[in-house]
Amino acid sequence: MSWQKLDDLNHTLEAFEHALSILGADEATNMPAGGGEKRAEAMSALAAQHHELAIAPEIADWIDEAENAGLDADQTIGLKEFKRRYVNATCLPSNFVRRQTTATMQSEQLWRTLRPSGDWAQFAPALEKVVDLVREEAGLRSDVTGLAPYDALMEQFDPGNRVAELNPVFAALKNFLKDFLPEALAAQNERLAKRPLKDFNGPYSVEKQRALGLSAMQGIGFDFNHGRLDVSHHPFCGGVPTDVRMTTRYRTDEFLTALMGVLHETGHALYEQGLPRENAHWPHNKARGMGAHESQSLFVEMQMARSPEFWQWALPLVHQHMGAGAIAGWDVEDVLARVNYVERGLIRVDADEITYPLHVILRFELEQELVSGALKVSDIPEAWHAKMTEYLGLRTLKDPANGPMQDVHWPAGLFGYFPSYTLGAMMAAQQWAAMEKAIPDVGTQISRGDFAAINGWRRDNIWSQGSRWTTPELLTRATGEPLNPDYFTAHLKKRYLG
Amino acid sequence: MSWQKLDDLNHTLEAFEHALSILGADEATNMPAGGGEKRAEAMSALAAQHHELAIAPEIADWIDEAENAGLDADQTIGLKEFKRRYVNATCLPSNFVRRQTTATMQSEQLWRTLRPSGDWAQFAPALEKVVDLVREEAGLRSDVTGLAPYDALMEQFDPGNRVAELNPVFAALKNFLKDFLPEALAAQNERLAKRPLKDFNGPYSVEKQRALGLSAMQGIGFDFNHGRLDVSHHPFCGGVPTDVRMTTRYRTDEFLTALMGVLHETGHALYEQGLPRENAHWPHNKARGMGAHESQSLFVEMQMARSPEFWQWALPLVHQHMGAGAIAGWDVEDVLARVNYVERGLIRVDADEITYPLHVILRFELEQELVSGALKVSDIPEAWHAKMTEYLGLRTLKDPANGPMQDVHWPAGLFGYFPSYTLGAMMAAQQWAAMEKAIPDVGTQISRGDFAAINGWRRDNIWSQGSRWTTPELLTRATGEPLNPDYFTAHLKKRYLG
Repeated sequence: MSWQKLDDLNHTLEAFEHALSILGADEATNMPAGGGEKRAEAMSALAAQHHELAIAPEIADWIDEAENAGLDADQTIGLKEFKRRYVNATCLPSNFVRRQTTATMQSEQLWRTLRPSGDWAQFAPALEKVVDLVREEAGLRSDVTGLAPYDALMEQFDPGNRVAELNPVFAALKNFLKDFLPEALAAQNERLAKRPLKDFNGPYSVEKQRALGLSAMQGIGFDFNHGRLDVSHHPFCGGVPTDVRMTTRYRTDEFLTALMGVLHETGHALYEQGLPRENAHWPHNKARGMGAHESQSLFVEMQMARSPEFWQWALPLVHQHMGAGAIAGWDVEDVLARVNYVERGLIRVDADEITYPLHVILRFELEQELVSGALKVSDIPEAWHAKMTEYLGLRTLKDPANGPMQDVHWPAGLFGYFPSYTLGAMMAAQQWAAMEKAIPDVGTQISRGDFAAINGWRRDNIWSQGSRWTTPELLTRATGEPLNPDYFTAHLKKRYLG
Repeated sequence: MSWQKLDDLNHTLEAFEHALSILGADEATNMPAGGGEKRAEAMSALAAQHHELAIAPEIADWIDEAENAGLDADQTIGLKEFKRRYVNATCLPSNFVRRQTTATMQSEQLWRTLRPSGDWAQFAPALEKVVDLVREEAGLRSDVTGLAPYDALMEQFDPGNRVAELNPVFAALKNFLKDFLPEALAAQNERLAKRPLKDFNGPYSVEKQRALGLSAMQGIGFDFNHGRLDVSHHPFCGGVPTDVRMTTRYRTDEFLTALMGVLHETGHALYEQGLPRENAHWPHNKARGMGAHESQSLFVEMQMARSPEFWQWALPLVHQHMGAGAIAGWDVEDVLARVNYVERGLIRVDADEITYPLHVILRFELEQELVSGALKVSDIPEAWHAKMTEYLGLRTLKDPANGPMQDVHWPAGLFGYFPSYTLGAMMAAQQWAAMEKAIPDVGTQISRGDFAAINGWRRDNIWSQGSRWTTPELLTRATGEPLNPDYFTAHLKKRYLG
């Protein structure tokens, strides 16, 4: 009886989530500008209705009753994850949520105005309010969940991740990368001296790039009966598992940026399309979290689609869709030199596979200190500069626009999210290694465009598992061991020094 | 205080309506087929939530309280329309709604299966159940509203329409059309004997047709900051006033079908875009009803866009977008001969301006008898055939697929809807006549593509009025007199015999 109530509730909540996902995708791809205000009103009202339904007090009774009823194994797992979400959704008083929503909205709006000029002094007071509230949030969440404050924040994005376990892993990775980056750059210089980067010889029409992207998506397993590809300013993968809305963005001087973006989002899309169909309205059959999701996109984009074997398959595909004369004179090695090009830079989203984790580690370290109170908002620019100099040899003190003001996360109150990116990169490498053991000739399969066995391994070990386990449990079950940065570092060594 | 509660409720209801409209448009234009099942689930769950919020019993108290508070003139009108909708939404017991939903779903599904073969015998029992329930619905609505049973059904589509007033109008129109149709056909034959229809000399690419359609929409006043044009199997105008989603469908052998469809939907779209922006979440600021809406689409499509003046403007537009050689050798008269071509046919949706009302009157007469019980479902084919023979000289007895099984309305339980189509045609003609009095040189304005004064008249008299008045009140206020079929018949005489 209480199970039925929970089941009905999950159906209703799923309907709201469906609407919000599709409305969000439509907004980014189709909506005329003048529709924005009413759309924002509508989505905010639906989100409020969803939240109200999701935190209703009687749900706690239903959970209690269901726990004491005879549940089967799947129901037990489903109820556990449902309860985890319910506890996380209800542990903030609505009065606090209102204060926090107002503060983060103001801070995000101010950030959008001030970012171009990088006016840190004017922005800092708004961010201070946000950080104060995040600290309060961490305390409130900690009280209810018994987790350490920063862990309680991470729990929203990657359940089960704990600072005590992540910090040593990230420290080891940082130490490796600080030494590895100069080595990789030297090796790259040597290679490029012998064989310089070749020209794209564009332009490349949007129509042909779209055809290439669709063909690559189809090749690696995207199901067009349950999804589509559109254009948006910021590429994303949204929608719902039965109707995945993927986007990319085209430039016409070259086509690799759009294609690699398509491959990244296809990694996300395959995860969504591969989730369990049965009882899809229950949380334990939804995607696990941000790190797990990023591991799926980076598995495709980084592990697979930046490898020589992949380009043995993809280069003929390029010629098929862009014409035989496209990137004339390039071979696989020339493509790899482009897609795996390494360069120190100030901007996280433009970073390559080696420097990206250093950007993330810098933020992960700083936000732990912000949440603990060890770092003040006013001291962020100096702290940022010190780490940027140490990790990447770059100076940012006089350029906050390209320093601590480059990302939306902190202005929007998202703390505990950044580690997911690099967690995803490490998880992807570890999954790849486990998959290679299970499918010894995987390189050959990729080079002939056969992704069935790879997707089968991913489906069995990741996609079908939904949110049945915490993020660390999911990884351990899939790969046979806990998070281990050695797979990622070995992958980098092989790719950049090998 | 109670006003604030009603205002909040209307904001919330608007959010659901926004979501359902956009999700519906997305389903028809973008959704991959595999997304259909979950989309239907989501929309049905949101519609149920919307209905539950809209019929909550405490709303009756809020209305009572608000009626006794000091309301301004606009609030008084708003509350009256809100109450009318609340009464109409709450007068069916939920038990009855469930029975009716099940019966109409089954009947509609059966109809989709049986329509191709026209198997009336197998379909009739399902329709009988639907008609029984419609009769029950009419009784329930009649009890609460005090309206006659069929009036209580029409009230859902065009508030204020009453059989006692409509029947004489429709009877007069029928008598006119029965004689007029042979005259018009004879006149057409005479014209075509002197000057035969010219060939299209296609093909015409979809891209160019789309550009022509967009250009025509822009020309007659569509606001692309608040709407867009897409493609769907069945053309429609949906979305919300700030984000109108219009569609058309293209064939490549000729371009007039798509263009006239675009013009029809643009008529709907201008209405939506022209509704009051302030307090748009209150029902009295939404479009009036089906007949009023149809009057706006037919005002553009029939009154304006099938006139010689319009084509003086539009023919150069055709050449601009389709190339100078498009419909080579055609002048305005050749276009008019095509778009105003009259032909007796069995299918309502393919009918022209003269025969269409006869299709509607046939259905209007039959469904009044079905609701009163004077006609049995099993006798529909004979009754249909008799009227079709009398009105259009066509035989349908052995062809139910192209007779009473051609429309979705009855299988879906929509009774009281059909008169709106022809009501719209008559209202459009009456509005056109009133506008011509106010703007004497309207023909000249149209011929040079200047639609500002026309749209100004429509905005003042129709669009800005939302649902402040009943349909008959709206027409009387706009044109100075009640519904009068003479404007429509005069228009037909001028166009087809003139």
